[in-house]
Amino acid sequence: MTEAVAMKEIKVAILGASGYTGAELVRLLALHPALKITAMTGDRKAGQPMATVFPHLAGLELPDLVAIDQVDFKAVDAVFCCLPHGTTQEVIAALPQHVKIVDLSADFRLFDVDTYAQWYGHEHRAPALQEQAVYGLTEIARNQVAKARLVANPGCYPTSVQLPLVPLLEQGLILAEDIIIDAKSGVSGAGRSAKEANLFTEVAEGIHAYGVASHRHAPEIEQGLSQAANSPVVVSFTPHLMPMSRGMQSTIYVKTTGANTAASLRAALAARFKAEPFVRVLPEGAVPATRHVRGSNFCLIGLFDDRIKGRVIITSVIDNLVKGASGQALQNMNLMFGLPETLGLEQQPMFP
Amino acid sequence: MTEAVAMKEIKVAILGASGYTGAELVRLLALHPALKITAMTGDRKAGQPMATVFPHLAGLELPDLVAIDQVDFKAVDAVFCCLPHGTTQEVIAALPQHVKIVDLSADFRLFDVDTYAQWYGHEHRAPALQEQAVYGLTEIARNQVAKARLVANPGCYPTSVQLPLVPLLEQGLILAEDIIIDAKSGVSGAGRSAKEANLFTEVAEGIHAYGVASHRHAPEIEQGLSQAANSPVVVSFTPHLMPMSRGMQSTIYVKTTGANTAASLRAALAARFKAEPFVRVLPEGAVPATRHVRGSNFCLIGLFDDRIKGRVIITSVIDNLVKGASGQALQNMNLMFGLPETLGLEQQPMFP
Amino acid sequence: MTEAVAMKEIKVAILGASGYTGAELVRLLALHPALKITAMTGDRKAGQPMATVFPHLAGLELPDLVAIDQVDFKAVDAVFCCLPHGTTQEVIAALPQHVKIVDLSADFRLFDVDTYAQWYGHEHRAPALQEQAVYGLTEIARNQVAKARLVANPGCYPTSVQLPLVPLLEQGLILAEDIIIDAKSGVSGAGRSAKEANLFTEVAEGIHAYGVASHRHAPEIEQGLSQAANSPVVVSFTPHLMPMSRGMQSTIYVKTTGANTAASLRAALAARFKAEPFVRVLPEGAVPATRHVRGSNFCLIGLFDDRIKGRVIITSVIDNLVKGASGQALQNMNLMFGLPETLGLEQQPMFP
Amino acid sequence: MTEAVAMKEIKVAILGASGYTGAELVRLLALHPALKITAMTGDRKAGQPMATVFPHLAGLELPDLVAIDQVDFKAVDAVFCCLPHGTTQEVIAALPQHVKIVDLSADFRLFDVDTYAQWYGHEHRAPALQEQAVYGLTEIARNQVAKARLVANPGCYPTSVQLPLVPLLEQGLILAEDIIIDAKSGVSGAGRSAKEANLFTEVAEGIHAYGVASHRHAPEIEQGLSQAANSPVVVSFTPHLMPMSRGMQSTIYVKTTGANTAASLRAALAARFKAEPFVRVLPEGAVPATRHVRGSNFCLIGLFDDRIKGRVIITSVIDNLVKGASGQALQNMNLMFGLPETLGLEQQPMFP
Repeated sequence: MTEAVAMKEIKVAILGASGYTGAELVRLLALHPALKITAMTGDRKAGQPMATVFPHLAGLELPDLVAIDQVDFKAVDAVFCCLPHGTTQEVIAALPQHVKIVDLSADFRLFDVDTYAQWYGHEHRAPALQEQAVYGLTEIARNQVAKARLVANPGCYPTSVQLPLVPLLEQGLILAEDIIIDAKSGVSGAGRSAKEANLFTEVAEGIHAYGVASHRHAPEIEQGLSQAANSPVVVSFTPHLMPMSRGMQSTIYVKTTGANTAASLRAALAARFKAEPFVRVLPEGAVPATRHVRGSNFCLIGLFDDRIKGRVIITSVIDNLVKGASGQALQNMNLMFGLPETLGLEQQPMFP
Repeated sequence: MTEAVAMKEIKVAILGASGYTGAELVRLLALHPALKITAMTGDRKAGQPMATVFPHLAGLELPDLVAIDQVDFKAVDAVFCCLPHGTTQEVIAALPQHVKIVDLSADFRLFDVDTYAQWYGHEHRAPALQEQAVYGLTEIARNQVAKARLVANPGCYPTSVQLPLVPLLEQGLILAEDIIIDAKSGVSGAGRSAKEANLFTEVAEGIHAYGVASHRHAPEIEQGLSQAANSPVVVSFTPHLMPMSRGMQSTIYVKTTGANTAASLRAALAARFKAEPFVRVLPEGAVPATRHVRGSNFCLIGLFDDRIKGRVIITSVIDNLVKGASGQALQNMNLMFGLPETLGLEQQPMFP
Repeated sequence: MTEAVAMKEIKVAILGASGYTGAELVRLLALHPALKITAMTGDRKAGQPMATVFPHLAGLELPDLVAIDQVDFKAVDAVFCCLPHGTTQEVIAALPQHVKIVDLSADFRLFDVDTYAQWYGHEHRAPALQEQAVYGLTEIARNQVAKARLVANPGCYPTSVQLPLVPLLEQGLILAEDIIIDAKSGVSGAGRSAKEANLFTEVAEGIHAYGVASHRHAPEIEQGLSQAANSPVVVSFTPHLMPMSRGMQSTIYVKTTGANTAASLRAALAARFKAEPFVRVLPEGAVPATRHVRGSNFCLIGLFDDRIKGRVIITSVIDNLVKGASGQALQNMNLMFGLPETLGLEQQPMFP
Repeated sequence: MTEAVAMKEIKVAILGASGYTGAELVRLLALHPALKITAMTGDRKAGQPMATVFPHLAGLELPDLVAIDQVDFKAVDAVFCCLPHGTTQEVIAALPQHVKIVDLSADFRLFDVDTYAQWYGHEHRAPALQEQAVYGLTEIARNQVAKARLVANPGCYPTSVQLPLVPLLEQGLILAEDIIIDAKSGVSGAGRSAKEANLFTEVAEGIHAYGVASHRHAPEIEQGLSQAANSPVVVSFTPHLMPMSRGMQSTIYVKTTGANTAASLRAALAARFKAEPFVRVLPEGAVPATRHVRGSNFCLIGLFDDRIKGRVIITSVIDNLVKGASGQALQNMNLMFGLPETLGLEQQPMFP
């Protein structure tokens, strides 16, 4: 049973609402008692009703899609920015100061603008703003998020990896060397643009690795882990494309320090995330599955002793569109407005 | 944005909670402000926590599964019965009079106990109770449902077929003869029992018809259509098994009366369902897709002029586990307790 | 066990080899003892090895893709034309007379150039050649195919529909009126071009109708059925997009003449197709499934008495890329060169 | 183009033909010029035609399924044994001496009977026969296989892992320590028995690990790698269940010796497998995908420098039912009878 009280309405714009993360925000906000969508943009679809672009949302009363320059940002309290990386920095830099922003792109995730330039192929276009941006891995940076004006919402892979690893590194329970991440993602992570590689016929009944040792989420992961380890961390990171629409699993191979085992690591994570509404550390023997988080903001974490002594296998699952994108964005926005963090995120996983 | 007010708690038992419809009820009730699950049964899984049987529900506080005879029905206000057909009649007949019941099995759907015996292979075991049962196609039988103690929740196929056809037959816009229903269902309609035919390997990348001209939903459909047409209707009904977990489409081929066309039929249905929260008649040219109702209680209906003169093609889509089962069950239960019909059913479709 | 004897090599070009039907031809021809691929074209991929465009074919020795005007057609005995409709007519008209052609596009399928113009939106560009073209539904037109220089290879839907219906209409066993075809296709029928509608995320876990009463295969079906019935036939034809890569089922609802039933229709089709290597009429009670023909040139047909008297339900399944395209094309080419019809087509269905 | 000459017929029995590996053998043998299936067993399906158990094979002339004790093994030259582990040892021990055997179960794969007992929970029932068994990883043990009477066909995971790793360990190019294998398999690897965990609804749209650090293929992999390294190897091995029917990828994380890199490892493997018909080492940058080997006996191997210095990522893909089971079994049987190794295995991958 849920309860809700009358709340002051907060006016929200979604920039780039014609993609999957935009649509997912609309789905979640439909059950939110305080945030109200008053503007949505989609440059190539400007002028169209959202119900045309996403017929599954036709049951809602929503503003039509408009071009960004048609939005009156003075009348907006908050912005979810779902634009492609590259264009985002300038758009956000131009927003009025009273607007709070959660940016779902990669544009403000890397603290170091040189690292950004190196991985994204162009200079950072809003370096001053970068300094104010808070990296919004909610469970790790809750206090900073609550005070932030601009939150860089973490990438999906980095979310699934950092949630288990950051506490373990901070507490010195695992080595910072030789961290191997084998990650698997559903296709929705690739967005809605029409590419041959993402056709049903190209993806169904198959798996392959991609971006091996060159995926842009690697520096983001390393940034978080380096901070936690207080020393530079380089990870092995190999994502795979799966024949499913949603869901992400990171299988992480780590070496423990001292006599630590899966049991002690599990205990540490369980203690760390005890009060968290969205992170669950599973008991011994229980195996996380992406289908157990589908459509929800949960992250499930399982830990297993490896056959190789001193090694532990960690599996972490999220819905890439929820905790890996729009759900965490909403969680952060709730925090930024002093609202209960779970508002709009009470939906349970959908299975089967 | 949703609003909820403090409501009197209604204590609910779910009988047969270890199947997919039981789990789906739990998912929906998690967002319900008044109905509270106080007992759940699962004979073969008695003693287990629900989170063991359905790990995706581990985030909820739920009673453990028990055997039916362990439930104190005196402490229960309402029952959702998700037991297999055959066993249900006796179980429900034994419930105390104060308990309101929505039965998701087929056991009370056929008014005529002889027809039941003929299609289900044994005598009806609660014929007296059958006379009190209301067939709960909500949009068609709202008033009776509101007053009922026992509601027979419609089957998934019959729901998707009767919603468009009953009004059209009642208004004499289509002929009662030669109604052809080509239906397609996701695999979850077959339940969770381990059968070779429902293995991933047997279902993926394929389609086939089943129960051709012999499916048990045929007499249920014919009962509703005959009532609407005020004359005996025999339908052609061919279900197909699809490589997807959820979703159901009925493609229905009808002959119109007089000069009626898709346009006039559409107008009639649009008028009939105008105030309905869960039924949407799509505008000309728009095509219903199961992915646009996934996880929601919606039914979308589209109508198209056929190339053969005097014929119209109607497509109707639902989520078989929601409007085709647990969602409609909750919709009915809300009505039976005088609650807003949409409580617990506000979740939007999940796409992709 | 198969046997093969030394055969004279026949040099074959595949025009438009960068699409799925081209790749499928390569797969089939890899096991063909007489046809040898000596040229392959793919305008946008000219200069690339086939193994780059289709890595699954990297095990074969194949010529690189070239532009059409780079092919020396004097050195070629036969052409499979897999180009998009519209461009095909002129390309084929320009081929030297000694070249035999199987055209997999729709460009030569409609005998009547006015009907072509009406459905395809432009005048026919090779009307003289149209008169020589043979419509290559092999089992129906074997003799003409054997003598043809240019064969118009049937569409996938028309193949699955005409194989059962043509003999029944010719023998007067079913009515020519009120034929209703509810067809379901895998996504590969849409080809390899990058369209949002065919993304994995848009197709998986869902079904919808498309081209309702307006699909271009309707006139092709009607042409064949009209010929068989010796009177103009208009059909109801509704295709659906399925979440699978390959496979096609047509569920066909017909009215029988006289006292005919599924049994008499089955007997007639069984007799008609008795000697056919690729068409199997299933015994009473057996249900065709697309997964039972996957990757093969088979067509399976099942017949069932309907609940409505005088009606029969026919289901017909093929692999849309094999019997519905490249397999039938090869079957036809074999015939045109006096080779055993099954050469290169002995591969059994792949299941699961 | 293929060529085949008249060959002496070799009579083959398939024991346990009612499972997926049995059916796959039938599919492959349908194109084999010398091996002829003269008996097939399936205890619970004894008396049934194969076409009833596997309708996709109905186009072939095949003996009906019988019980094992009904087979006249005097009239049989060779046996493919597809029985479940545990029962296999005694069945094979009872076969007449003239019969050559490829056993697809795990029963003779582990040289050390104590290791067998430890992982399979019972004493080995034919320890003498174990000593004669040859572990049939064809490319590694070709000479022994050719002379063997009894070949233990490798497991699917061990095949995909050992093909790249054995040569690298033998040549001292990688370290024997800290080998991490993250493997992904289609559902067909679990066989055809009806288990809740393998239902479509439980597998589709999801991924999870299973048998973490406890899968029975671990000791088999370690046996092969230890032999190659000439020292005891313990691996980290984590299999995952994928929502696809066929296909297997092993992503393997290794440390190189000396200054070795992906390039030098690639060169070594390319040289080692140069003459192999079924193993392809991909050029730099090319990524193996399971869909590129579907239905074929190929193994594709790709190598990539990791971001962590001194590390290389190897991905290896096979079709678990072909190179991972029935295809390799046939490859071995060909060798055992002095036939060309590729007979019956010329079928190209099926894509899409």
